[in-house]
Amino acid sequence: MDDTLLIREVRPWGGPAADIRIEGGRIAAIGANLAAPAGAQVMEGRGRIAIPGLVEAHTHLDKTLLGLPWYRNEVGPRLIDKIDNERRMKRALDIDPHRQSMRQALQSLGHGSTHIRSHVDVDTDHGMWGIEGVAATREKLRDLVHIELVAFPQSGLLVRPGTLELMDAALAAGAEVVGGLDPCAIDRDPKGHLDAVFGLAQKHGKPVDIHLHEPGEMGAFSMELIIERTRALGMAGRVVVSHAFCLGAPEMDALIEAIAEAGVAIMTTASPSRPVPPVLKLAKAGVVTCSGNDGIRDTWGPYGNGDMVERAMIVGLRNNLRRDDEVELGLRICTEGGARIMALPRYGLAEGCDADLVLVPAETVASLVVDRSRDRTVLRRGRVVAEGGVPVMAAP
Amino acid sequence: MDDTLLIREVRPWGGPAADIRIEGGRIAAIGANLAAPAGAQVMEGRGRIAIPGLVEAHTHLDKTLLGLPWYRNEVGPRLIDKIDNERRMKRALDIDPHRQSMRQALQSLGHGSTHIRSHVDVDTDHGMWGIEGVAATREKLRDLVHIELVAFPQSGLLVRPGTLELMDAALAAGAEVVGGLDPCAIDRDPKGHLDAVFGLAQKHGKPVDIHLHEPGEMGAFSMELIIERTRALGMAGRVVVSHAFCLGAPEMDALIEAIAEAGVAIMTTASPSRPVPPVLKLAKAGVVTCSGNDGIRDTWGPYGNGDMVERAMIVGLRNNLRRDDEVELGLRICTEGGARIMALPRYGLAEGCDADLVLVPAETVASLVVDRSRDRTVLRRGRVVAEGGVPVMAAP
Repeated sequence: MDDTLLIREVRPWGGPAADIRIEGGRIAAIGANLAAPAGAQVMEGRGRIAIPGLVEAHTHLDKTLLGLPWYRNEVGPRLIDKIDNERRMKRALDIDPHRQSMRQALQSLGHGSTHIRSHVDVDTDHGMWGIEGVAATREKLRDLVHIELVAFPQSGLLVRPGTLELMDAALAAGAEVVGGLDPCAIDRDPKGHLDAVFGLAQKHGKPVDIHLHEPGEMGAFSMELIIERTRALGMAGRVVVSHAFCLGAPEMDALIEAIAEAGVAIMTTASPSRPVPPVLKLAKAGVVTCSGNDGIRDTWGPYGNGDMVERAMIVGLRNNLRRDDEVELGLRICTEGGARIMALPRYGLAEGCDADLVLVPAETVASLVVDRSRDRTVLRRGRVVAEGGVPVMAAP
Repeated sequence: MDDTLLIREVRPWGGPAADIRIEGGRIAAIGANLAAPAGAQVMEGRGRIAIPGLVEAHTHLDKTLLGLPWYRNEVGPRLIDKIDNERRMKRALDIDPHRQSMRQALQSLGHGSTHIRSHVDVDTDHGMWGIEGVAATREKLRDLVHIELVAFPQSGLLVRPGTLELMDAALAAGAEVVGGLDPCAIDRDPKGHLDAVFGLAQKHGKPVDIHLHEPGEMGAFSMELIIERTRALGMAGRVVVSHAFCLGAPEMDALIEAIAEAGVAIMTTASPSRPVPPVLKLAKAGVVTCSGNDGIRDTWGPYGNGDMVERAMIVGLRNNLRRDDEVELGLRICTEGGARIMALPRYGLAEGCDADLVLVPAETVASLVVDRSRDRTVLRRGRVVAEGGVPVMAAP
């Protein structure tokens, strides 16, 4: 019985107090006054709210500057300025993908993220440097946090010959998801770009996650092409469009309905400075929605700390979520929404689920989001992996 | 010499390390290796960055729910829903303006705000309850934090007869600033509303701060009326327009120029869910810009913790400030900008200034904003008034 843990007196999703019994890394029972089996460990929940592990559904572990000397940002305003600058800076600043992804993944774990989907750059300057580095991190942290790699053509797929072959190699080497990027604005060939991305997905039997920064009608056009391919290939539930700023433009209700029907999911960071997908509308239409912190302290910008509870607050602020039920939606997006797009089996607070939990002191779910207490206990498969922001493994 | 304090090794605004000698509550000297006069207290700055006291230039101390049981928000979506709900809830929830303003002001002080401009509701349901309560807080906290009251007709000025007389009484009783609110959208009589507001300002010799939520062309029209009155009455430098969402609409460059010429200042919370005044454009045009947290955990919404460093981060996120010089602008808005609109004498990090300081561990000013360390030492006129988020006086 020594893998049994009884957590006394927590409030699952802010509901009535209950005990949680964990056996073999899974939730065996949730209920009032559960008995502690002989030999079981007992943890006092102190009335904290229990939520399932936070899901960081969109970040870039390979290129954070965490732990490096401060990078003074003097980059130009265009998207391509940031992309080109970053590719140059990787060697100049020694942004080693393995070391840096270790740092960020552990920091995220400290805040309670037990699952991370990371886009990882694949380009002809750096080849498989990123994929290999983050894959090594995935292995080293396997018992602490679940990391999934998206092979991501950050510098363009068709415009930089040789990238497609590298993407193919990255997927063969174990990247779990096929990435894509702005089929019109960056690759200048929407049909060609998307046929290549979905072609890789078919070849490797893997899902798709496409960065779509394109605004307004251009972005809506690319979205239509993605929907067509999702339908034609029977990939409902296996395609995510990240950012989807076009959905923040007026008159996108019909497109949102089409997204829902096609089973395409949306990732929004709820960027305060861009038009963003309206999460209340998406929820009403039945579109699976997740969120992520995107780049954290990198050459693109200095913001971010890896905390998905803070991200839930930003989702709320950006979408003007004020009612308690609305604020809670933000946290569901940062937990259950991410679990849906990562197709996590056994996710949630129910018997039989993996015991991936975060315990946070709060009066209600809404107060949990706005207070963002650091006094968190994080469990991964029933084992305490972080306490008060500090993970059990030190970062390099 | 026992009112002399030598702070060793801080970095004013992130610059080279220096010592700061404080005498009689003011900065007497800033320089390398200053001698400690006999009898002087010595504080180790530990290389932290020193900034002048943060300025909370727009909040509502009288109506926070801090310290009360969690309020489950189920309020309707319109502005008037929130205004009417709040007026009813004040008695129902016992939102006592004195107790609540003590709580919020001390929490803000813990984060480093040494100066607070608070709008305080004046209406025919509650009369002077708010003004008297916050004025009592202003007196009790006089040695810790400087509080300024704006008499604020939250429920409308002309549409609720009797309010104008109460505003007059509030100003006579010591409110320092004349407030106003949406001359078109709420009071339905822009000329009448603004003539009344500026009339009170003339009668009492006090400055003006008007909430202007009105969007687009309607808000621009109200803004023009405010500019006309500011010019006609010679009130340049004594008029603030708060929120000014209309400046987030397209084609407002000419209006921004007119605002600059008239000497009207702008307060922006950088709301992530509304069009907002573009702070880079305002800075370029020479418009004095300040910021504030607005309502903190009240019946309008659950967000906010009173931290003006976090607000600087939100100003940065909302305005897409990524370069270090841009992120620093956000913090200048939350310090010097607020000091300008409150017309604080002796504000800043220079000899002769009041020793209102915040010491924060950070590598650079930009990292100070994004990291938001809680390890802050707050001084008011040379005396430590908060440490690590905890003020020297306990809240009721």
